[in-house]
Amino acid sequence: MAGTNLVCVLDGPGTVRVESREQPVPGPDEVLVRIAAVGVCGSDVHYFEHGRIGDFVVRKPLVLGHEASGVVVARGERATRHEVGQRVALEPGVPCGRCAQCRSGRYNLCPDVRFFATPPIDGAFARYVTINEHFAYAVPDSMTDEQAALIEPLSVGLWAARRAEVKPGDTVLVTGAGPIGLLAVQAARVAGAARVVVTDLSQGRRELALRMGAAAALDPASEGATLAGLGADVLVECSGAQQAVTVGMGALRGGARAVLVGMGGDEVRLPMSALQVREITVTGTFRYANTYPAAIALVAAGRVELDPLITGRFGLNQVEQALTTGAGGAGAVKAIVYPQLDEV
Amino acid sequence: MAGTNLVCVLDGPGTVRVESREQPVPGPDEVLVRIAAVGVCGSDVHYFEHGRIGDFVVRKPLVLGHEASGVVVARGERATRHEVGQRVALEPGVPCGRCAQCRSGRYNLCPDVRFFATPPIDGAFARYVTINEHFAYAVPDSMTDEQAALIEPLSVGLWAARRAEVKPGDTVLVTGAGPIGLLAVQAARVAGAARVVVTDLSQGRRELALRMGAAAALDPASEGATLAGLGADVLVECSGAQQAVTVGMGALRGGARAVLVGMGGDEVRLPMSALQVREITVTGTFRYANTYPAAIALVAAGRVELDPLITGRFGLNQVEQALTTGAGGAGAVKAIVYPQLDEV
Amino acid sequence: MAGTNLVCVLDGPGTVRVESREQPVPGPDEVLVRIAAVGVCGSDVHYFEHGRIGDFVVRKPLVLGHEASGVVVARGERATRHEVGQRVALEPGVPCGRCAQCRSGRYNLCPDVRFFATPPIDGAFARYVTINEHFAYAVPDSMTDEQAALIEPLSVGLWAARRAEVKPGDTVLVTGAGPIGLLAVQAARVAGAARVVVTDLSQGRRELALRMGAAAALDPASEGATLAGLGADVLVECSGAQQAVTVGMGALRGGARAVLVGMGGDEVRLPMSALQVREITVTGTFRYANTYPAAIALVAAGRVELDPLITGRFGLNQVEQALTTGAGGAGAVKAIVYPQLDEV
Amino acid sequence: MAGTNLVCVLDGPGTVRVESREQPVPGPDEVLVRIAAVGVCGSDVHYFEHGRIGDFVVRKPLVLGHEASGVVVARGERATRHEVGQRVALEPGVPCGRCAQCRSGRYNLCPDVRFFATPPIDGAFARYVTINEHFAYAVPDSMTDEQAALIEPLSVGLWAARRAEVKPGDTVLVTGAGPIGLLAVQAARVAGAARVVVTDLSQGRRELALRMGAAAALDPASEGATLAGLGADVLVECSGAQQAVTVGMGALRGGARAVLVGMGGDEVRLPMSALQVREITVTGTFRYANTYPAAIALVAAGRVELDPLITGRFGLNQVEQALTTGAGGAGAVKAIVYPQLDEV
Repeated sequence: MAGTNLVCVLDGPGTVRVESREQPVPGPDEVLVRIAAVGVCGSDVHYFEHGRIGDFVVRKPLVLGHEASGVVVARGERATRHEVGQRVALEPGVPCGRCAQCRSGRYNLCPDVRFFATPPIDGAFARYVTINEHFAYAVPDSMTDEQAALIEPLSVGLWAARRAEVKPGDTVLVTGAGPIGLLAVQAARVAGAARVVVTDLSQGRRELALRMGAAAALDPASEGATLAGLGADVLVECSGAQQAVTVGMGALRGGARAVLVGMGGDEVRLPMSALQVREITVTGTFRYANTYPAAIALVAAGRVELDPLITGRFGLNQVEQALTTGAGGAGAVKAIVYPQLDEV
Repeated sequence: MAGTNLVCVLDGPGTVRVESREQPVPGPDEVLVRIAAVGVCGSDVHYFEHGRIGDFVVRKPLVLGHEASGVVVARGERATRHEVGQRVALEPGVPCGRCAQCRSGRYNLCPDVRFFATPPIDGAFARYVTINEHFAYAVPDSMTDEQAALIEPLSVGLWAARRAEVKPGDTVLVTGAGPIGLLAVQAARVAGAARVVVTDLSQGRRELALRMGAAAALDPASEGATLAGLGADVLVECSGAQQAVTVGMGALRGGARAVLVGMGGDEVRLPMSALQVREITVTGTFRYANTYPAAIALVAAGRVELDPLITGRFGLNQVEQALTTGAGGAGAVKAIVYPQLDEV
Repeated sequence: MAGTNLVCVLDGPGTVRVESREQPVPGPDEVLVRIAAVGVCGSDVHYFEHGRIGDFVVRKPLVLGHEASGVVVARGERATRHEVGQRVALEPGVPCGRCAQCRSGRYNLCPDVRFFATPPIDGAFARYVTINEHFAYAVPDSMTDEQAALIEPLSVGLWAARRAEVKPGDTVLVTGAGPIGLLAVQAARVAGAARVVVTDLSQGRRELALRMGAAAALDPASEGATLAGLGADVLVECSGAQQAVTVGMGALRGGARAVLVGMGGDEVRLPMSALQVREITVTGTFRYANTYPAAIALVAAGRVELDPLITGRFGLNQVEQALTTGAGGAGAVKAIVYPQLDEV
Repeated sequence: MAGTNLVCVLDGPGTVRVESREQPVPGPDEVLVRIAAVGVCGSDVHYFEHGRIGDFVVRKPLVLGHEASGVVVARGERATRHEVGQRVALEPGVPCGRCAQCRSGRYNLCPDVRFFATPPIDGAFARYVTINEHFAYAVPDSMTDEQAALIEPLSVGLWAARRAEVKPGDTVLVTGAGPIGLLAVQAARVAGAARVVVTDLSQGRRELALRMGAAAALDPASEGATLAGLGADVLVECSGAQQAVTVGMGALRGGARAVLVGMGGDEVRLPMSALQVREITVTGTFRYANTYPAAIALVAAGRVELDPLITGRFGLNQVEQALTTGAGGAGAVKAIVYPQLDEV
């Protein structure tokens, strides 16, 4: 089983390089996975640019990438869940399974979670990774490697819709049409939203939102008045902008729910009357829990479209390009890295 | 405003006739509606055949029909919600609005509800009816009269899915593919079910279920073994058969929900281990509450298909035919009565 | 039935006077109630001092007082719920019963609610009032007039606990030990809180909180460190101070709920990490819904203590004194006005 | 660490004996616990009498007892949660922590749970046991060994109240006043029930129910009519009798919840109208999940009384007596075994 593993490490802000490591050996409950595809997330880009996200600081070379799919190539001694050869989507955070949060079903809040590409845990821009077998999920043959990798960001969208309690017939406002916003649009539709309204400053993203099922896509700079009268049941805020929160809260009916997904400043300001006179409930999301089986089933059933999100493809030697393209390009939504390839 | 009203009354089991009455005058909070289309429900057929449903006994001539749409033609003095000329779908049960059930959001359990076509309240096989303005819902021009009428049975399906807490990614088993079962299939899909499995003894209905989005449609007589291993998240029982309940409960995973919609005997037998060892939650449905806005929005958005359900069309003089065709015909699913027409 | 009614009206900021009016005549669904006792609320004091609360402006003489009990002395033609002579607690807000909020069980958000002592609706500092019979609740003989009046502020506390989803075993932090905070303490305990921690700057109020069942009562100025490590399941913020919100959010465990009851500035600032990394859910309260039957049953069963809150008693000619005493006195918690008495 | 362990084993129906075994060695994540007190449960009695419960068959000598407390005397290499010397209550079922049920917070439904005294897993009628450190919970010094042991049956009661969604102000009917019924009474009160009504055929148990806070305790044989008009919000059925289910369902208001805790026949018959016309929700309970911290906090806070339940005390050589006394005696409620003592 011993062999070499090629991984792409972040040495510090702006510096990535491919290095050769020993191939990891799966622990008793783990599987060894040959990675097929990895989506590039905004958090990867943020680590690349800043070397940290809040209190998480990259102090030694870190492998980025946490939206991953692959194939099981070896199993630990107690791992029986998958056959060798099984194609899998990887849930990148493995919680302890024993603490109060884990036991009550909110394992995303586990204080001891080990999450890919979060210091000091390495991620999946690598030929091989090991992972607890229960966090590798079999995917059907009909699902592509890219789709299996994007089960991860889809999970973020589904979790937002779940925490927002989107219900059949709802009107949902999604502010921000980046990758997460676009997946939130689809998650809202899957949960039954009759009408999803999207705002984004970029016309290209607004058009993509319409293609993904939004009923309307508005420019918040010029169409704020429309929003004020929306009376939406749900706000899914994906831009991280205080202004979007403020406008979004104003677009909700009494008793509505708002979920803040976009990461912005350290504080958010909320209008007291929205919380009190209209009793709006506000919360945020941190990753997701119990979403993978649903996400896989929905993609397999054709209920969610992931392919239109993919706007760039890169090999392991092209990770820097993947991280920088994903950051700035106007038309760029989601880059995919193929770690088995040097270049694409 | 005074004029004549033609209505079709049930005199007793098996006997309906058209009679002329005075046109009703809307009360202060009511609107007068010229009825456009009325769906025939199994309960209409049951009253026609037996003259009663349980404790509800037809003691004097009763106008049947409670799945109705039409157009507002006059308004009571305090009724300001709709303009004259507004096309509307009618929610046929008007609760008191004041009792504990009404105030807590479960107005379908209001003991003082006045429900169309439930003795002694007349229904909508009539040229004109009056109804509280808040129970007439504006429908968009894009919606047909038939679709607006079928908002009522769709509400039954949506309510079943809501009480079953169908969630995105769920596997849902619907037993019985009559009109309500078929709408439950769609309601489950709208709520995010990734896989809806249907059972029905009739091949024709199974095929219709497949056309309505079911992933599989099984003959319970020959494919029971498949069901036993289903591990479904939700059972929506629409057949009223004890055998379907028994098989359905066996098809559920631990922690699943079962909703009994089909009306059968006075008692239902449930396996204790399903309730206890697997902690399955069981309940039933009685009509619906707070479904009309969602149902209208979903149909308007094209998320639900109602047209394929319609298999017969009748005028006011043909109500007997509508009631008898709907009852027995193998291919018959849903008959529509057009009260403004003598014959179709 | 015609007679005179004495009421105490607010003419403008700082000016109240007793005037004689015609005794009101109950509408068809109403009862006429001879008021026995009325609690003085902070909102009454605010109207007295400022002539307005936010957008609600006193433009013509307004009768204050909305925490009221009394006895039914006459009934409208359709009012059959109570016999004449029945002692009742009054729920001061009568919603429309028909709008979407009313129908879905959140009638406190009804846009057409008519609420006592909220311009232009008169309140209960009066010998007689009329009210819809369903908003007068029979109380047992064992309950005093004062207790029956204080069902209203108890409802505020119960609603806060309900929206905070206080569960058996929870640790609950209540910031601010005014009348509402003290009732929130009791509501939390009734809902099963194993440990209620209270903060207040006033030592007297902290002592009262301990008497009402708090496990600890802290001075936030000196004991903030204790709070930081609390890991509470629930925050019920009753002070209206931004600082209390900030400290309170920091005292919560991951997945906790925070309910903002105290009214402060137009905006509240929340730490983003609390909402996102810890997925805390935040909301506020606006009055209450469906609390009266529970509140009455709990007081009748001796589960809640209201008497220790009462710290002043006044007649109808002493309303100004009641409004000013309640505002400032260090030991003052809740004043009661007895409208049948000129002076106490 | 090696030493001997004395355990009491069940060889087959009606036969128990003490045997000497090697002292167990804690696994890496386990602690070794010297058992202080063990409650005798009806399931222990059932295994003793019948050698099986349903599909769980005693095929080799089995140590019974799963309501246990003790003190940590050694720790596995990774076990850091408790110091040696810590007094603990033991949660007797250790789930896998990884399956879908575990991850979604319903670990009581884990198919791979290892539960004390359930074949082939040994229980706690033993001087020493080992258990995963996360399933040993520190208890305060103020809590007795017996109370710590009875956290287990209290958990059954709390879980019933939680699944029944008992809310402040509710009227709760508990049918059957055995140990679980009596704890359900207290759990209902802790969750805010304003009025708990109990039924039991035994006058002694009815009296005990009243002492535990029930507002009324009725003989179902003679007071059934009272029940019919109860309009309860919740039924917690603890007798296992079909008749109690039938009467109990009739005592519920529309929209109520019923939880079946008592184990009776293989099937339960439910009135269809209760499920449909009144939309009552029915479920059962299987053990409990996430109850220990709450149960310990509530007992520590004096919110629940466990001592009055204890009606017998036995040493390890007296387990047969404990099992037979607990079964039949009219006044017997809960026997405690002290495994460190040969005789009491």
